[in-house]
Amino acid sequence: MTVISRISKGALVSVAIFMSVAATLSGQTPAMNLMPEPAQLTFRQGRLPIDGTFQVGLAGYQEPRLQAAAQRLISRLARQTGIPLSDVLASDVSQATLLIECEHAGEAVQSFKEDESYMLEVGPKQARLHAPTPVGALRGMETFLQLVDLDATGFGAPAVEIHDQPRFPWRGLSMDVSRHWMPIEVVERTLDGMAAVKLNVFHWHLSDDQGFRVESKTFPKLQGMGSDGHYYTQKQVKEVIAYARDRGIRVVPEFDMPGHTTSWFVGYPELASGPGPYQIERHWGVFDPAMDPTRDEVYRFLDAFVGEMAALFPDEYFHIGGDEVNGKQWKSNPRIQAFMQAHGLRSTADLQTYFSGRVLQIVEQHGKKTIGWDEVLHPGLPKNIVVQSWRGQQSLATAARQGYMGILSAGYYLDLMQPASRHYRVDPLEGATAGLTAEEKARILGGEACMWVEFATPGNIDSRIWPRMAAIAERFWSPQSAKDVDSMYRRLAVVSRELGFVGLAHQSNRFLMLERLTEMNPVETLATLDSILEPVKGYNRLMGRVYTSFTPLNRLVDATPPESDEAREFAALAANWKANEGEMRKRLTRWHDAATGLVPMMKQNALLQEDVPLAEDVSAAAAAGLQALDYLKASQPAPSSWVTEQLNILAGAAKPHDELLIMVVPSIKALVEAAK
Amino acid sequence: MTVISRISKGALVSVAIFMSVAATLSGQTPAMNLMPEPAQLTFRQGRLPIDGTFQVGLAGYQEPRLQAAAQRLISRLARQTGIPLSDVLASDVSQATLLIECEHAGEAVQSFKEDESYMLEVGPKQARLHAPTPVGALRGMETFLQLVDLDATGFGAPAVEIHDQPRFPWRGLSMDVSRHWMPIEVVERTLDGMAAVKLNVFHWHLSDDQGFRVESKTFPKLQGMGSDGHYYTQKQVKEVIAYARDRGIRVVPEFDMPGHTTSWFVGYPELASGPGPYQIERHWGVFDPAMDPTRDEVYRFLDAFVGEMAALFPDEYFHIGGDEVNGKQWKSNPRIQAFMQAHGLRSTADLQTYFSGRVLQIVEQHGKKTIGWDEVLHPGLPKNIVVQSWRGQQSLATAARQGYMGILSAGYYLDLMQPASRHYRVDPLEGATAGLTAEEKARILGGEACMWVEFATPGNIDSRIWPRMAAIAERFWSPQSAKDVDSMYRRLAVVSRELGFVGLAHQSNRFLMLERLTEMNPVETLATLDSILEPVKGYNRLMGRVYTSFTPLNRLVDATPPESDEAREFAALAANWKANEGEMRKRLTRWHDAATGLVPMMKQNALLQEDVPLAEDVSAAAAAGLQALDYLKASQPAPSSWVTEQLNILAGAAKPHDELLIMVVPSIKALVEAAK
Repeated sequence: MTVISRISKGALVSVAIFMSVAATLSGQTPAMNLMPEPAQLTFRQGRLPIDGTFQVGLAGYQEPRLQAAAQRLISRLARQTGIPLSDVLASDVSQATLLIECEHAGEAVQSFKEDESYMLEVGPKQARLHAPTPVGALRGMETFLQLVDLDATGFGAPAVEIHDQPRFPWRGLSMDVSRHWMPIEVVERTLDGMAAVKLNVFHWHLSDDQGFRVESKTFPKLQGMGSDGHYYTQKQVKEVIAYARDRGIRVVPEFDMPGHTTSWFVGYPELASGPGPYQIERHWGVFDPAMDPTRDEVYRFLDAFVGEMAALFPDEYFHIGGDEVNGKQWKSNPRIQAFMQAHGLRSTADLQTYFSGRVLQIVEQHGKKTIGWDEVLHPGLPKNIVVQSWRGQQSLATAARQGYMGILSAGYYLDLMQPASRHYRVDPLEGATAGLTAEEKARILGGEACMWVEFATPGNIDSRIWPRMAAIAERFWSPQSAKDVDSMYRRLAVVSRELGFVGLAHQSNRFLMLERLTEMNPVETLATLDSILEPVKGYNRLMGRVYTSFTPLNRLVDATPPESDEAREFAALAANWKANEGEMRKRLTRWHDAATGLVPMMKQNALLQEDVPLAEDVSAAAAAGLQALDYLKASQPAPSSWVTEQLNILAGAAKPHDELLIMVVPSIKALVEAAK
Repeated sequence: MTVISRISKGALVSVAIFMSVAATLSGQTPAMNLMPEPAQLTFRQGRLPIDGTFQVGLAGYQEPRLQAAAQRLISRLARQTGIPLSDVLASDVSQATLLIECEHAGEAVQSFKEDESYMLEVGPKQARLHAPTPVGALRGMETFLQLVDLDATGFGAPAVEIHDQPRFPWRGLSMDVSRHWMPIEVVERTLDGMAAVKLNVFHWHLSDDQGFRVESKTFPKLQGMGSDGHYYTQKQVKEVIAYARDRGIRVVPEFDMPGHTTSWFVGYPELASGPGPYQIERHWGVFDPAMDPTRDEVYRFLDAFVGEMAALFPDEYFHIGGDEVNGKQWKSNPRIQAFMQAHGLRSTADLQTYFSGRVLQIVEQHGKKTIGWDEVLHPGLPKNIVVQSWRGQQSLATAARQGYMGILSAGYYLDLMQPASRHYRVDPLEGATAGLTAEEKARILGGEACMWVEFATPGNIDSRIWPRMAAIAERFWSPQSAKDVDSMYRRLAVVSRELGFVGLAHQSNRFLMLERLTEMNPVETLATLDSILEPVKGYNRLMGRVYTSFTPLNRLVDATPPESDEAREFAALAANWKANEGEMRKRLTRWHDAATGLVPMMKQNALLQEDVPLAEDVSAAAAAGLQALDYLKASQPAPSSWVTEQLNILAGAAKPHDELLIMVVPSIKALVEAAK
């Protein structure tokens, strides 16, 4: 047995990836295309063919959720392969191509304690999926779908034995639907994508300064005056919850308070700490309005509101936000200042703690546990609260030491346009949390990626979440030892395509956006230029131009994916220019020609005019790269005047151009320097 | 006034296209991107900017359909431009960017007599759309959306005055949903596309040998045993009808009989002329089973069935099919033979006429008029029937002379994979119908394109219908004088992109299909190869391999669009090689490199293996083209041995390869011959 052992040091599970002798000896070990990587995988010899006879059989415990999932699997497989498949489940399970055996029912309301484990054995005649619970079966079905590929013999799944379970029980995506409205179809396809990579918590950021997005029947002015008419009805919320449960995903609602609440105050200014009236906020940032923590009326409102929402959302956790209160309204209100003095609250942070404590009690009275951002953490709170750390592992470690549970979001902000590798390297149990005791580590339940939508709309949110989310999902699910970035990127490309068949629009909407930008001109040239660009990182877009919710997000930067595969590939080629000179020349020429050719059209186009300097810099940088290769190949040192000139050009090209970065500049710079 | 007059000789309308002096003098006449071309268009000076302040106002007659349409227009515009727009209608209509005035209600059930005319005036401050009816307003809104483009100043619509109405009152698309099941979302996005190009009849081919696709409550075994579970519920049918009416589209149901009825007989074998039992047909073609025209029981069944469907479908017309009865079951049934003798019916055609006559009576008794294929035509039928000609203008002319109304489908079969130009050249009032009197011509109501789905699935039907359907829609709507094929293709490319924003998947699904074929390899190379290919034409696919409804349609031919823009462009370049040599070399090299590079991957891929010879022929043909350019450029006659060899290679390349044609071969052949 050739054992590629990757023994995890994680607190929860010990795992290993095996590879059978048979498969290794045949020299035909199939590519491991799974993401997230399973806890334990052994390749066997052989292949299960997938053709028109494919059937699913269900054995053991049965429920409608399993039948629906089996039928979805068949539809997905049909879509993925183009093979027409009958969606009638096999009556004789021994004849089923994929036999799914489930032991017993799962939790009535899924919690982080749900058993999600499964075992999948694929043989040349049948695949057998065994799971204690329906949720485990759901996870295994996604693994099965990811195993299917096309080779010289046709579609099929490699023979394999997989024993799998998640490393962390809380694996989420938090999605802001306040700053830009996300219609229900965006939510639903996001849930499909989450299920495909085994995520289990959809954290729905339903209210913020810029919009209150759920129907309250008790306080109808919340959505009536705070949403521009863009909110989910309670019927739709129930549909989303059912849709998510069908996919093994919990829905945790967040109603951020006491800050980030301007939209509440439009209809209910009496909740605020400052005098109204209030308008829906149209800008991005941290704003002054905050609830008044000193008045009983506010808590009575929240009691009724939380009661209504606690009945609507079945999850055991209720997110009360709590982040980014700047305290200005509190400081400028004499009555609140007097209250603080009277109660011995020395800072606005203390006042917020007081507020959180009371809201927490309300949440508890309605049968829920509380989750909140870092700021809600305060010793003396009940131990069943969960802290969501947006600040870093440090606050997570502090919470765990104090006996609180926590999840990590710092490092997983998808809206900051960081490469997948950067998120992939962040681990909830490394850094400040690495030194925790095993007992403390067990309190780290996992993590949540965050998608804030200042710069995302239904038209581009898919490319902001996918495929990078899949790499983070692997961090949450797979053994801690899964760290091979090259392997991650190889598999991420496969998963990205699969997500297209799942229904995500990260590719198709990018194409539409480029078509919009090019009007009647061929889109391929702009796609070529765009392929080496990335949007600026972090909060840079917030710091430059003034954006509001009315600003069109229809410029090149809004279409450009967060990460350039082309630039990463070029960097790898450039690391060994001698071996890759031909391919490098081809690419440099392609970029150069595309950029040069686009300039006349761009000048006539209101949306692309701003990118003319960018295109010119791409032309110049590519030309520098080609010349550098000439010098290198001739083994002739480049004249220092040429080097100086090129480095000058490249320094300009390295700067942001209308919020876009030319990602191949560093590789070209290295070539120029090598040519010295 | 420079008048570009295009006086139509059509029977229904006289039209002209004007261009204002002002616009002409400025040298800035905007491109006319409308499809279908309006009856009368005058460019004015100026441009209406489209920005975040865009608002729609409704004046005059109001109904929910208009409000919904105005809100859809705003959403489409927002999607097309990426500008966030409020979907709240303007309360002060004088401030509306687009003011829509409607005179009065339209027909309660839209018929071909509905007034669809409108007037659209776009000025630099406001656009004003005026229409007698809501349907006319809908047509004008689509025109407005098509006017919007992007220039150096931003999004906007050119100032223009349009007076428009359709040339023909019946402009349809017939869609087969029997041979391959088309889920409701395919139907709905097809309706969106139809509305975008001003079509007004969705002819729903709901039953055929391969499936009965609508729920009958009276005869539940129709869908219960004849559909594999793939049928529309009556609730869904009502939704589709409402969806279509909202878009100014009639829904004409077809229940094809007495032939094409195998799926009926699975549950009700007693309707058939031959002994059962019957199974759902899985092959394509014309089959023997036909209803028994001799038994009253059959007519009683049809009476109850037509009664049920007549109540479900509000349209005044009911399509009874009637095509392709081969008469075999009738000839081999002695009882039927005896009936024919007793009634003096000399042929099976006479027997079908007898059947049609009785069905027609049933349809009439249920308050509907009949439409049927050519074969139902028989002198003596009531004059309100409509004949749908699939055989050609001749049968249409015959019908019109006999006093019947008719629509043309021959020449508009989208499934035959003909170029848009070929369909565009077919006119319902040319050829055999050209010699009709004005009165007879007025009986030609228009036409319907047909989409038969032996080779279409939900995954590729969009590319089989769109964008070519738009060119046919222009034939049905625009003046007969609209014949400029170059202009058609230029505008078709624009409309094709707009249809992507409408929600059609002709582009995005092609991309997914290519991704499926290439597995983990870059899709662009295969797309390059594919860009010069077309599927074989006409019924060639039916005549080669054996296909059934179980055959996967996931090969390259199934992804390849019906028409290669690249090949058409290359033919245009090759017509003047001296001027275009550089561009031609670029393209030839691109095809050559793509084809050559793909071969190793194709060999390892079960779906692409068959296309290796095709790729090799593309390589060889492209190489021949490049060499021919060398000879031509050197002004040196190519050696005759070389010419012979190349022509030999090209003769091979010109043949179908696994149902695909290499469309650039004729242009390359011409180059080689020129190099002689």
